[in-house]
Amino acid sequence: MIDEMEQPDTSFRNRMHTIIFEADTRAGRLFDIVLLIAIIISVIAVMLDSIESINKEWSGTLYSIEWGFTILFSIEYILRLCSVKKPFKYATSFYGIVDLIAIIPTYLSLFLPGTQYLLVVRALRVLRIFRVLKFVQYLNESNQLQRALIASRRKITIFLFFVLTMVVILGSFMYLIEGPENGFTSIPRSVYWAIVTLTTVGYGDIVPQTVGGQALASFIMITGYGVIAVPTGIVTAELTKSQDPIHTQACESCGGDGHSFDAKFCKHCGAELTGMVFPRL
Amino acid sequence: MIDEMEQPDTSFRNRMHTIIFEADTRAGRLFDIVLLIAIIISVIAVMLDSIESINKEWSGTLYSIEWGFTILFSIEYILRLCSVKKPFKYATSFYGIVDLIAIIPTYLSLFLPGTQYLLVVRALRVLRIFRVLKFVQYLNESNQLQRALIASRRKITIFLFFVLTMVVILGSFMYLIEGPENGFTSIPRSVYWAIVTLTTVGYGDIVPQTVGGQALASFIMITGYGVIAVPTGIVTAELTKSQDPIHTQACESCGGDGHSFDAKFCKHCGAELTGMVFPRL
Amino acid sequence: MIDEMEQPDTSFRNRMHTIIFEADTRAGRLFDIVLLIAIIISVIAVMLDSIESINKEWSGTLYSIEWGFTILFSIEYILRLCSVKKPFKYATSFYGIVDLIAIIPTYLSLFLPGTQYLLVVRALRVLRIFRVLKFVQYLNESNQLQRALIASRRKITIFLFFVLTMVVILGSFMYLIEGPENGFTSIPRSVYWAIVTLTTVGYGDIVPQTVGGQALASFIMITGYGVIAVPTGIVTAELTKSQDPIHTQACESCGGDGHSFDAKFCKHCGAELTGMVFPRL
Amino acid sequence: MIDEMEQPDTSFRNRMHTIIFEADTRAGRLFDIVLLIAIIISVIAVMLDSIESINKEWSGTLYSIEWGFTILFSIEYILRLCSVKKPFKYATSFYGIVDLIAIIPTYLSLFLPGTQYLLVVRALRVLRIFRVLKFVQYLNESNQLQRALIASRRKITIFLFFVLTMVVILGSFMYLIEGPENGFTSIPRSVYWAIVTLTTVGYGDIVPQTVGGQALASFIMITGYGVIAVPTGIVTAELTKSQDPIHTQACESCGGDGHSFDAKFCKHCGAELTGMVFPRL
Repeated sequence: MIDEMEQPDTSFRNRMHTIIFEADTRAGRLFDIVLLIAIIISVIAVMLDSIESINKEWSGTLYSIEWGFTILFSIEYILRLCSVKKPFKYATSFYGIVDLIAIIPTYLSLFLPGTQYLLVVRALRVLRIFRVLKFVQYLNESNQLQRALIASRRKITIFLFFVLTMVVILGSFMYLIEGPENGFTSIPRSVYWAIVTLTTVGYGDIVPQTVGGQALASFIMITGYGVIAVPTGIVTAELTKSQDPIHTQACESCGGDGHSFDAKFCKHCGAELTGMVFPRL
Repeated sequence: MIDEMEQPDTSFRNRMHTIIFEADTRAGRLFDIVLLIAIIISVIAVMLDSIESINKEWSGTLYSIEWGFTILFSIEYILRLCSVKKPFKYATSFYGIVDLIAIIPTYLSLFLPGTQYLLVVRALRVLRIFRVLKFVQYLNESNQLQRALIASRRKITIFLFFVLTMVVILGSFMYLIEGPENGFTSIPRSVYWAIVTLTTVGYGDIVPQTVGGQALASFIMITGYGVIAVPTGIVTAELTKSQDPIHTQACESCGGDGHSFDAKFCKHCGAELTGMVFPRL
Repeated sequence: MIDEMEQPDTSFRNRMHTIIFEADTRAGRLFDIVLLIAIIISVIAVMLDSIESINKEWSGTLYSIEWGFTILFSIEYILRLCSVKKPFKYATSFYGIVDLIAIIPTYLSLFLPGTQYLLVVRALRVLRIFRVLKFVQYLNESNQLQRALIASRRKITIFLFFVLTMVVILGSFMYLIEGPENGFTSIPRSVYWAIVTLTTVGYGDIVPQTVGGQALASFIMITGYGVIAVPTGIVTAELTKSQDPIHTQACESCGGDGHSFDAKFCKHCGAELTGMVFPRL
Repeated sequence: MIDEMEQPDTSFRNRMHTIIFEADTRAGRLFDIVLLIAIIISVIAVMLDSIESINKEWSGTLYSIEWGFTILFSIEYILRLCSVKKPFKYATSFYGIVDLIAIIPTYLSLFLPGTQYLLVVRALRVLRIFRVLKFVQYLNESNQLQRALIASRRKITIFLFFVLTMVVILGSFMYLIEGPENGFTSIPRSVYWAIVTLTTVGYGDIVPQTVGGQALASFIMITGYGVIAVPTGIVTAELTKSQDPIHTQACESCGGDGHSFDAKFCKHCGAELTGMVFPRL
């Protein structure tokens, strides 16, 4: 009874959901690829629009493209809201918010005229490319990467916190040694220089001029050498660990899991592991 | 008897110790968070004070903030000394020294007037941020990082020693090839350039001009590529090792150890592992 | 019968194949070393030809060298086509295409005269050095490297895709904050700057001038620190995995695999492992 | 008989050898520390000598120091030759050659007068610091590092060979795209730029000016991101492998080795492993 009643609605919504949200059917994959191309074209249009020489000549065409894609993405956003069972949950999810942000700026530019504000709005639209990231979630390997990054989340935070403390102290010392006459005009600017140096970017817009400053800079650089090893070590250790071929299925006798792929007997209760399917890695 | 006598004192000192030094009670965590915010505000005040335009207008306000926090941190330092059983041991510990250094400069600026000295004192106060690191010690993961870094201490030292030798030799050769007319005015300056190059910072304030200099620079850069791999390899190898969840306790039957955390039976003698406490990682 | 008929041809083609394609005979190794030296000399000749002062004086000599090597490599290409059983398969393989590209530009310069075009053709010839890579395939270790890189192919792609998205968004924000008056003349140019910064190259031709720009740049640099850890982690994890000396052959008694190279008895059923061939790693 | 005859000589030479070459006795350690300090002082003297302002004022003192250390190191070199059983083998070893090179330049400056040549000689003397590396060989951990670097020797070579091929091709393309008018005056100079970019040094002395050049530069930089992961991966994989706690002792029954630390039975013959001493790691 319940089946019959809900069938038409569910079937329609399901089909739409399959096309818009999933990529495992022919129609769904086609939709995703078309959407991806549309996003990339619209981003390129925004980028070209910012180049003065192109903006002068093609202003009208780019304006049309901008509005065309905005309407297209607006329709897509409404369809997405309709095709999910819990529209509010989608609207407040990461991709839901990104989908909305990707269409708002163009509408906003109607109510808030003025060249300088428009410029801000245009650049914000580029956030639209975040949607492309959805493509990533269909790739199996990205989960492994994500898991490793989430697992190393806290260690990376500690590390970044330590780096921030270090650049504040080293930047202050540099401000003291070099002083405003050598380009280190304030502690915040010296801290900026310390970040540029420690991360081995080294623009060269601010460089130590005194012997003392060059000595401290040398110390920062060689320290940066050792420091860069830490986040790499953290992520690598997590990635190595996450690759351990641990079978996801549990023992049928005791329910214990964490068995390696060549295990014949449950390491928790000693029962033979017969019901386990061994997928090809 | 002894219990009764020591109880009041111990109880009071214990409670203070719990609030000031620990972070596992409600009051203790609140104290730490308030302290952290106070430290960050005082550091930002010192940083803003160094910006000329802000210094001119807000000099008085920033001076008051500086003194307010100094008195606050002084009271905190005295409380810390009172709340520990061995005040001398705390005063000579890493955090004890940092706590003292964080308050001294402001008092010192009273006895040693003069703008140029004051400037030095101001920058030193930024060391106060070191105290923030105490926040780190409450996070479980930082111990793992610390252990890995301590374990790779000696290998990193050998490596840095080797790098220093290399930059002295390569810098001297560069001084010989390029000479003072191309910016390589002395061996120390050429060594500074070699450090800037090997660590891939590359400011561009000193660059090789001759063909020979560019060839040697190319060699240094490509070498630096291989060299940067070494500290990363050291830290990663240690982190991978320290992550092995091997339980430190031995089997009660045979005394064998090296059991994984989910082991129920000893892998050496087959006896049940009952007496082992399994802490949460 | 068949043997007798095909023998002379096969024998001749085989001997040529052994000399030209393999490096395990005396003649074959000599051929490869001579070829390698010829390629390096011809590449150096092209490189020297591009230096104006050398080009003026040695133009004729370099032109002769260019033609000499082109004829030599043409003969070699024809011999390669003759010595393989399936010439079409070789011609369409990676090295077949590179071998052809390495000789075409010189001939092309005859039919398409004009100094400006010749310049283009000359630079393309440097692709000839790709042939040197064939030397690599004879080294055992390169296979291990190749396998690790192929295995991490997909993870690296996801990562690069994510980095590209990030630099587009961060570059656009930077264009908005700094604006054309500070060198960030367009979004594409700002994206170029974001790539220069995130990869820690840091030329310094475009640098943030405003406080907001320097704050965002600091964020990008510190992020870049964590980001650089990801590809390193991916490749390291694959290399660590690919080094595990697990034998691919299964036990003859129970069919279980995953045996280490020095195993004498099956770890699954205890039967002696007699039928396994142990290749030298 | 033989013992009595050789005793005096051996005893004297042995004692000298122990003091000069070893560091495990009190006298030997003292000798090494004094030598190390002497080397560092003499290197600093050479470095200070190259600074023009110091050279003018302290020329005489630095000349005396230079000669003092040269005579000291000459005596030390002769003592080394006397204290070893095979002087020729020492003289042709790595440290023997370095010891000789460290004293030659000063004597050479007597026979080859002339300010410009003297300058060359002075810089060469800095090679003397290589001797300091002898200190490293006494540290246990350096062996592990050395073994890992030697094991990854071939992989690093393949990698550097590949990087060199890449920079030649990418540099040539850049020469073609940017041309001499934008600073890319020749292919060798463009290759130098490609090395500066790929290794993320990024001086900024040569930067792409055209849109095409900046696009190719962006490609090189992002590629460099992935490429830098390879040497790190190689070294890390080797370091991780070399840390495997494999017991060095062999089985008493069959002589097979490679047992893990918790092994009770020989994995080669099945005999119980009773005679093995398990040192604390």
